[in-house]
Amino acid sequence: MGTSSIESTYLQIRSMEVRGAGRIARAAVSALRDYCDKGKFSSTRDLYRGLSAAGERLKSARPTAVSLPNAVNYVLAAAGRSEAKGGQVREATKEIVAACDGFISESLKATKVIGEYGAKRIADGDVIMTHCNSEAVTAVIAAAHGARKRFEVIATETRPRFQGRITAAALAKLGVDVTLIPDTAVRVHMRRVDMVIVGADAITANGAVVNKIGTSQVALAAHERKARFYVAAETYKLSPATMLGELVEIEQRSPYEVVPKAWAKSNSKVKVANPAFDVTPPEYIDLLITERGLYPPQGMVFLMKELYGEARAPLA
Amino acid sequence: MGTSSIESTYLQIRSMEVRGAGRIARAAVSALRDYCDKGKFSSTRDLYRGLSAAGERLKSARPTAVSLPNAVNYVLAAAGRSEAKGGQVREATKEIVAACDGFISESLKATKVIGEYGAKRIADGDVIMTHCNSEAVTAVIAAAHGARKRFEVIATETRPRFQGRITAAALAKLGVDVTLIPDTAVRVHMRRVDMVIVGADAITANGAVVNKIGTSQVALAAHERKARFYVAAETYKLSPATMLGELVEIEQRSPYEVVPKAWAKSNSKVKVANPAFDVTPPEYIDLLITERGLYPPQGMVFLMKELYGEARAPLA
Amino acid sequence: MGTSSIESTYLQIRSMEVRGAGRIARAAVSALRDYCDKGKFSSTRDLYRGLSAAGERLKSARPTAVSLPNAVNYVLAAAGRSEAKGGQVREATKEIVAACDGFISESLKATKVIGEYGAKRIADGDVIMTHCNSEAVTAVIAAAHGARKRFEVIATETRPRFQGRITAAALAKLGVDVTLIPDTAVRVHMRRVDMVIVGADAITANGAVVNKIGTSQVALAAHERKARFYVAAETYKLSPATMLGELVEIEQRSPYEVVPKAWAKSNSKVKVANPAFDVTPPEYIDLLITERGLYPPQGMVFLMKELYGEARAPLA
Amino acid sequence: MGTSSIESTYLQIRSMEVRGAGRIARAAVSALRDYCDKGKFSSTRDLYRGLSAAGERLKSARPTAVSLPNAVNYVLAAAGRSEAKGGQVREATKEIVAACDGFISESLKATKVIGEYGAKRIADGDVIMTHCNSEAVTAVIAAAHGARKRFEVIATETRPRFQGRITAAALAKLGVDVTLIPDTAVRVHMRRVDMVIVGADAITANGAVVNKIGTSQVALAAHERKARFYVAAETYKLSPATMLGELVEIEQRSPYEVVPKAWAKSNSKVKVANPAFDVTPPEYIDLLITERGLYPPQGMVFLMKELYGEARAPLA
Amino acid sequence: MGTSSIESTYLQIRSMEVRGAGRIARAAVSALRDYCDKGKFSSTRDLYRGLSAAGERLKSARPTAVSLPNAVNYVLAAAGRSEAKGGQVREATKEIVAACDGFISESLKATKVIGEYGAKRIADGDVIMTHCNSEAVTAVIAAAHGARKRFEVIATETRPRFQGRITAAALAKLGVDVTLIPDTAVRVHMRRVDMVIVGADAITANGAVVNKIGTSQVALAAHERKARFYVAAETYKLSPATMLGELVEIEQRSPYEVVPKAWAKSNSKVKVANPAFDVTPPEYIDLLITERGLYPPQGMVFLMKELYGEARAPLA
Amino acid sequence: MGTSSIESTYLQIRSMEVRGAGRIARAAVSALRDYCDKGKFSSTRDLYRGLSAAGERLKSARPTAVSLPNAVNYVLAAAGRSEAKGGQVREATKEIVAACDGFISESLKATKVIGEYGAKRIADGDVIMTHCNSEAVTAVIAAAHGARKRFEVIATETRPRFQGRITAAALAKLGVDVTLIPDTAVRVHMRRVDMVIVGADAITANGAVVNKIGTSQVALAAHERKARFYVAAETYKLSPATMLGELVEIEQRSPYEVVPKAWAKSNSKVKVANPAFDVTPPEYIDLLITERGLYPPQGMVFLMKELYGEARAPLA
Repeated sequence: MGTSSIESTYLQIRSMEVRGAGRIARAAVSALRDYCDKGKFSSTRDLYRGLSAAGERLKSARPTAVSLPNAVNYVLAAAGRSEAKGGQVREATKEIVAACDGFISESLKATKVIGEYGAKRIADGDVIMTHCNSEAVTAVIAAAHGARKRFEVIATETRPRFQGRITAAALAKLGVDVTLIPDTAVRVHMRRVDMVIVGADAITANGAVVNKIGTSQVALAAHERKARFYVAAETYKLSPATMLGELVEIEQRSPYEVVPKAWAKSNSKVKVANPAFDVTPPEYIDLLITERGLYPPQGMVFLMKELYGEARAPLA
Repeated sequence: MGTSSIESTYLQIRSMEVRGAGRIARAAVSALRDYCDKGKFSSTRDLYRGLSAAGERLKSARPTAVSLPNAVNYVLAAAGRSEAKGGQVREATKEIVAACDGFISESLKATKVIGEYGAKRIADGDVIMTHCNSEAVTAVIAAAHGARKRFEVIATETRPRFQGRITAAALAKLGVDVTLIPDTAVRVHMRRVDMVIVGADAITANGAVVNKIGTSQVALAAHERKARFYVAAETYKLSPATMLGELVEIEQRSPYEVVPKAWAKSNSKVKVANPAFDVTPPEYIDLLITERGLYPPQGMVFLMKELYGEARAPLA
Repeated sequence: MGTSSIESTYLQIRSMEVRGAGRIARAAVSALRDYCDKGKFSSTRDLYRGLSAAGERLKSARPTAVSLPNAVNYVLAAAGRSEAKGGQVREATKEIVAACDGFISESLKATKVIGEYGAKRIADGDVIMTHCNSEAVTAVIAAAHGARKRFEVIATETRPRFQGRITAAALAKLGVDVTLIPDTAVRVHMRRVDMVIVGADAITANGAVVNKIGTSQVALAAHERKARFYVAAETYKLSPATMLGELVEIEQRSPYEVVPKAWAKSNSKVKVANPAFDVTPPEYIDLLITERGLYPPQGMVFLMKELYGEARAPLA
Repeated sequence: MGTSSIESTYLQIRSMEVRGAGRIARAAVSALRDYCDKGKFSSTRDLYRGLSAAGERLKSARPTAVSLPNAVNYVLAAAGRSEAKGGQVREATKEIVAACDGFISESLKATKVIGEYGAKRIADGDVIMTHCNSEAVTAVIAAAHGARKRFEVIATETRPRFQGRITAAALAKLGVDVTLIPDTAVRVHMRRVDMVIVGADAITANGAVVNKIGTSQVALAAHERKARFYVAAETYKLSPATMLGELVEIEQRSPYEVVPKAWAKSNSKVKVANPAFDVTPPEYIDLLITERGLYPPQGMVFLMKELYGEARAPLA
Repeated sequence: MGTSSIESTYLQIRSMEVRGAGRIARAAVSALRDYCDKGKFSSTRDLYRGLSAAGERLKSARPTAVSLPNAVNYVLAAAGRSEAKGGQVREATKEIVAACDGFISESLKATKVIGEYGAKRIADGDVIMTHCNSEAVTAVIAAAHGARKRFEVIATETRPRFQGRITAAALAKLGVDVTLIPDTAVRVHMRRVDMVIVGADAITANGAVVNKIGTSQVALAAHERKARFYVAAETYKLSPATMLGELVEIEQRSPYEVVPKAWAKSNSKVKVANPAFDVTPPEYIDLLITERGLYPPQGMVFLMKELYGEARAPLA
Repeated sequence: MGTSSIESTYLQIRSMEVRGAGRIARAAVSALRDYCDKGKFSSTRDLYRGLSAAGERLKSARPTAVSLPNAVNYVLAAAGRSEAKGGQVREATKEIVAACDGFISESLKATKVIGEYGAKRIADGDVIMTHCNSEAVTAVIAAAHGARKRFEVIATETRPRFQGRITAAALAKLGVDVTLIPDTAVRVHMRRVDMVIVGADAITANGAVVNKIGTSQVALAAHERKARFYVAAETYKLSPATMLGELVEIEQRSPYEVVPKAWAKSNSKVKVANPAFDVTPPEYIDLLITERGLYPPQGMVFLMKELYGEARAPLA
């Protein structure tokens, strides 16, 4: 039955049995689809209310996962449209189920689509810089490599956790010409870079991009030389809460990622700062590559509204 | 005797018995002083020629050490002025010896003087960022701390060799409030930085500064927010050869400073770039703090000429 | 009856019995609501035509008040949607009345909502600059203060009419830590400013903001140091006419606001310029805070279309 | 019959009997209108499929003409909306025919509308620079001149093909005060320019504008001095394919446009580059003036979606 | 006798019987000239020492007047050159007296010379903006007006003390076409400004200019539109102490210059900031117009050394 | 005899029998050398006065040739130094003749020296853009090519007189890889340019460079992408008069260089502007390459003073 599916999915997300931004989103939508498909509703209003409550329950499973409310709101937006039309429950149910199926199928192929769109931006002879390790960026580069384009990649090591080594190793395995550099050498290498591509952890209402620490200074160095700066990201990275003024909080991580414990002990008066993310402002971003197409950063707010409905805050 | 002093100094510099930019400079000047003081010369022209030959010998001991030709040229410039006056040998000798003594005594206190000048630029409440590890910068911060100013220092770790840890540890030992950050976190922290101070490996004719890799992107981030950017450097870091068009070569260092050998082996297709220095352009530098006073970067070329005579290339 | 309500409202607005951007807007919508609710219409087309004529009458009451056409067009856009659906008059009437009620209720709480959204952008320790005196800005600051955030405000005096004194006095009364400065001291203080918030008199199709003279140079100084620049404004400040190429005219006010009459007389050859507003270009604006959420300036044109329908010019 | 109209129009476009961006677009829409009006369809789905196939046939007539797919997609978007409503064929047909009629009538007056909108941006005393020869720009200037505004135009000669001479001659004939300058003199004259207006060959998803070679450096020079930079273009210049990552290819033209053949022969080792277009980035564009109103460049992607439906790539 | 002249001048400067930057400088030089001319000295070394002590005495009369140490150091630099030559006392005396006479005569005509140099930069049709009230700027404008050039001046009112009214009144009396504007209207008017000319209170080692509050934001607005920005200043405004790291202190003035006392009392919780000066960075200054000729700001440090000798700090 | 040599040189320069900046300079110096060598003078003062009068005569031959007063002033500066020393006429004569010989020999090899210095700035793989046709630039490129460096040159055609064709042809003849482009294609090609090198017609006191029309927009495009921008110029291009405020006048040339006469006639209402030069501001110039070494533009004023003595204007 619909409701029990909601509850079990709630538990799976809460216990982190289901995890990863994409998987969480699909599990939630699947549960709402079942709820809708199997439930009995006296009116479209009744259907909408039920879905709304089920959605709230699901969202509460992991309040900080950005893709979870997006997935739920996507379904509610579809339900809202059906209700507004004021037709019959059966028809509305069919529309909502179709929207859920659409979401799941889109989500499953989103990264692949981003790869295909992004690969078209790469030309023979290009020098591409990337930072950290992003599935979407790897998809773009792999697709371009698969299309037999000849280009070169520069990967930053991405201190403190060296995720750039993972990127470099993976690309080298694909046969891509890749060079690893220390983060201090970004500006020196930017001179011959044609484009930078990075991923995103979250995208805000004004098109700013939250991503791994160091991203914004790569963007600054690209901007200095007018190298193009692209962000590749699935649309469930959009953060509609920022439309209501919410700031994205930047996590501080352990100092022991930056210095060895022994060093820290013998230099106990030295403080260590280790922010996990930074914010790249929209004026340093040329394009966002999403599975819905390419957009300028200033367009993200409309994609938010289109996909997840208008965010509106209840007044106290 | 003068000549033997030249030869023994030549050998000491060549064998690296004498090393360090300041020590090399003083050894060379000291040898030229002896040569001048103890030698017998029939005319000021004769004296100048002798010194010139002795200087060439000394310079050949380590052709890449930037302070060595500067030291020699400083003495030759003094000798040139004496010769131009066309007076007597005795007088000329006295003038040159005085110039040598002056150079040595200035050089010995240069870092201390830079510390005193630089400390005046620091005000209570300032947040200061530094990169890598520089004797001159440490002198500035120590002097400000000694003057009981209350400020905070942010030190970058300075990949790949982590020299920033040395800076942080040393300042903490002095009692300075210091925070160590990964190089990726420079732009995030720049928001609250009032001034950046770094050292220099070499200073060129148009006021560009060659320094540890990463310096130029710290400068770029400072420029973005209009934080002041200071370079603290003794004048023997000036590179008069750049007046004649010479480019400063940037050394590529071992990949094993960037990745562990094991990783490199299992990822042998990943190239690693490890440039030792970068070049900060003059438009990102507010002031150079030297033992001769504070100068805008565009003034360095005249300090070169003043100290080391006019560089002129022989035509083929 | 509906029509007489239109006529009486027309007179009230014309005679300035009703004034203030928000009040004018609500009076017009209320009159159209009555017209629609109480009238008799043979078809949705008939209803739409009647409303359209009533709206034109209302707009003519004060052709220069920016909120008046916005309010009328909001209702007409709702009516247009109803007509397009081609349903029955009764249903259409209900929809339009609901839209009117929605507009009025939104308008009544718009400033409060802006306050709540904007307050979330303020963090403990922030230094905020503001210019002139704006209800929306005061709402943001009051809400942040009410949420027990600890921050500091710098208010410019805003020559020639010193409206900044009103702002400073009001905020001080609330208990906010506030400093008043001459307009000449904006750049000096910007060094420690985290964000600027100002209001708006009108917002154009490309996201430029018309506001009290001096706003655009505060924005320029903020841009120089990358301090965030926010505009807080209700959506009835949007100027859809600018989509059709209209330029916003800048009023020149009396010289006696700038110099005393006596001075003007004894220096009669000195001309005095006293423009009331200036235009801040979108590239200096980070975010607009509206009661509909936060938007980048480049998004304003879509909010115009969404709220007030597509502006189309009749061709001659 | 409908189908034969498609085929004959296909042949007319293919043989270039019909040419010019606007004429091609109208011919295609007219053929689809006939197809729809005269055909017999069993369901709205059937109607949509038929139109879709007809549209593909038409598009294949000249795959590189940007206005052709836009025109077809405009009709398909209307058909899609009708189908989605799931009503009756007769109603759907009426809606689609109306959309076609709307497109044709809009297209016929688009340039004139642009002229009227754009003319409002010109004030007495303005100095306007233009580059190359554009129908839309001429419409704007002619409309402003017709409205008895007094202004001055500076036209670049637009090497290598001197299209600026055509512009200058045409404007002079209208009685406009016009000065022709070499392309090398753009920056010198920009000092007194208030606004630049140019046309467009294509407009991309992030608001970049493809136009005659030299446009982007006029834009750069305007940006340096903050002269306003406007692009006047009909919406069929929008390139929705760029939403899917497509790059706009820049044609290389014959070297003999740049140097005489005789010179080329006697200097056969000198290569000659002659790109036909360049790309002006959105940050150098203040406004786009279209027949749908004025937009910031970042808004173009939404106009694309609104007019031509959401571009979606089929996955392999 | 020389010494008594030193003492009486010391007292006149100290008691402010002699005041004004130029007059103080000339009084000090005149006293040193007498000291030198009338004294009896056994050697050039003796002469130099005597002058040095006399100079220190004079400087101590008003430690914060920037022209006083400059005047004294100018004489000492001349004495130093004489001593270095090692000639006879009589000759040295003559040289120093000549230097003193030169200084006094140059100083007397400095403002006039600046006026003549600066006037050449003004062309017919220019629009010139100025801020505050400066003798040197008035000299430039008067000279250009005297040369029958036709131009327009925009004078800012210069809050809080309205010195701009003095400028406007004075220029209007000369017959210059002058407009007074509030400080908030600077950016709006900058659009048609060709050049800005301001005076200086002090000029630092890196070419930054300390001047009346508001100057640096006029410079910023000029920089935004690439209007030329000139500083007209006599060379005794140079601050050689800044070569040794000294920061120029910015005075905070009374709040009652900003708000009436009554207002301050009834709003006692509102703080008022009233800094007297600000610092314009060299990158916003095109040229300094001095009586020694026109220089880029980065050249000021060499003019300091040339005129006042090398500033060197004694080490503790 | 000396005087007759002055007179005959005066006539040769006036009649343009002697022309070209370098040749004029050398002829004038040679005449002054003869005057000095062959004349009879009672004192160094007498000698100086004679030279001074002879120099004025020579300068009057072509008042607008920038190298002529420089050459004369160079000799007068040497004479001034001799006079200041107050030695004997014979010695002074020798010194002045030596200075003249030095000037002539330096001048003869200046272009070659510039070539050698400049060539060092070029590295294998560089892409170099140049504008117009400059002997000094050709010397740099030829020297680099002679040193077997492998690089590519892009030459702009340089409308209206196509001097870029001369450059392209000459370089191709040397075997250099060269591409000719229309001036409209500068920004498009700048993307892959490493450095720009241009010549100069005159260099001003603040380091601005007057050169062929179009130079400043090449500089702007280089600045946008941070390509280095070098100016190669002999020091007799320095314009010391600009130290005294003189503006460099920009010649307007014939419209028939821009359009054919026939076109001009049939379009007689079209005005044509054809300025010969433009001014590149110092902030767009990285280095000036002179035969005296490499300098930042802000250093030019000191090179002026060093070479040609302090420019001082006589007061009316």
